[in-house]
Amino acid sequence: MDELAQRAVARLKQAEKTLATAESCTGGLLGKLITDVSGSSAVYPGGVISYSNGVKHNLLGVSQENLDAFGAVSEPVARQMAHGARRAIGADIGIGVTGIAGPNSDDTKKPVGLVYLCLEDDHGSICRELHLHGARDEIRSASAQAALELLLEALDGVH
Amino acid sequence: MDELAQRAVARLKQAEKTLATAESCTGGLLGKLITDVSGSSAVYPGGVISYSNGVKHNLLGVSQENLDAFGAVSEPVARQMAHGARRAIGADIGIGVTGIAGPNSDDTKKPVGLVYLCLEDDHGSICRELHLHGARDEIRSASAQAALELLLEALDGVH
Repeated sequence: MDELAQRAVARLKQAEKTLATAESCTGGLLGKLITDVSGSSAVYPGGVISYSNGVKHNLLGVSQENLDAFGAVSEPVARQMAHGARRAIGADIGIGVTGIAGPNSDDTKKPVGLVYLCLEDDHGSICRELHLHGARDEIRSASAQAALELLLEALDGVH
Repeated sequence: MDELAQRAVARLKQAEKTLATAESCTGGLLGKLITDVSGSSAVYPGGVISYSNGVKHNLLGVSQENLDAFGAVSEPVARQMAHGARRAIGADIGIGVTGIAGPNSDDTKKPVGLVYLCLEDDHGSICRELHLHGARDEIRSASAQAALELLLEALDGVH
């Protein structure tokens, strides 16, 4: 995971792009992994830990309509989180992560391990729906890892 | 450290208080530690990872005057970060952490390991100046640990 974060920071530097994060289920882990890398300040201005729906709405501009209609753990919300992070922080690339890390589900009937991940840049946005298994910390780690992988793919122009 | 975060979440629940974080040098680690605890969503709406000065100013309301006069790693900035987190997130308690995790200093001559930590609640604010030693990850971990300890002291009414 450390190596993945190092590659992500190196690739961001190479591409001269900055990154903003919006984290729900990972709760700061993605930012922590990026800032583990010395020199990450050149490409990572920061992010928002939007654990509550209020913070998703107020700081990231996630619409109440999407929260009501699809729930916090949904692709439309992850997409708006990525967009909101990019706008609020002021960065080239925004990543949003929202999911159910467990051990319990939220007040919907969505399964533990369901995670939505979206990345937005000038080319538009790409999203992933993940179905992860394991304990809370494993689901959180795997979510952060998938976010770094999505970032590397976007930087490598896979999409 | 896990045990410290568990105690902090339990005490916040007991006191019916919510917490917001503003992290610079810890880059999300403090939020990660809090949200490692299952059920932390009841007391932790979220935080801001304000790695750049721009994010400190724009999202947390840290004044350009303080950034210019004292630098990002200073007590006045940590105090405004705690205040800004509390206000931006909408929480009872705000914690701000800013420091130099190394391996290099910032463009000031401040030493690696210098960290300022402030907590604000209805009673006012309390700040700590830390002089930490060790590698980057050790300084980051010790900063997050000191933040959790300060939170527990404030909740226990030590101040």
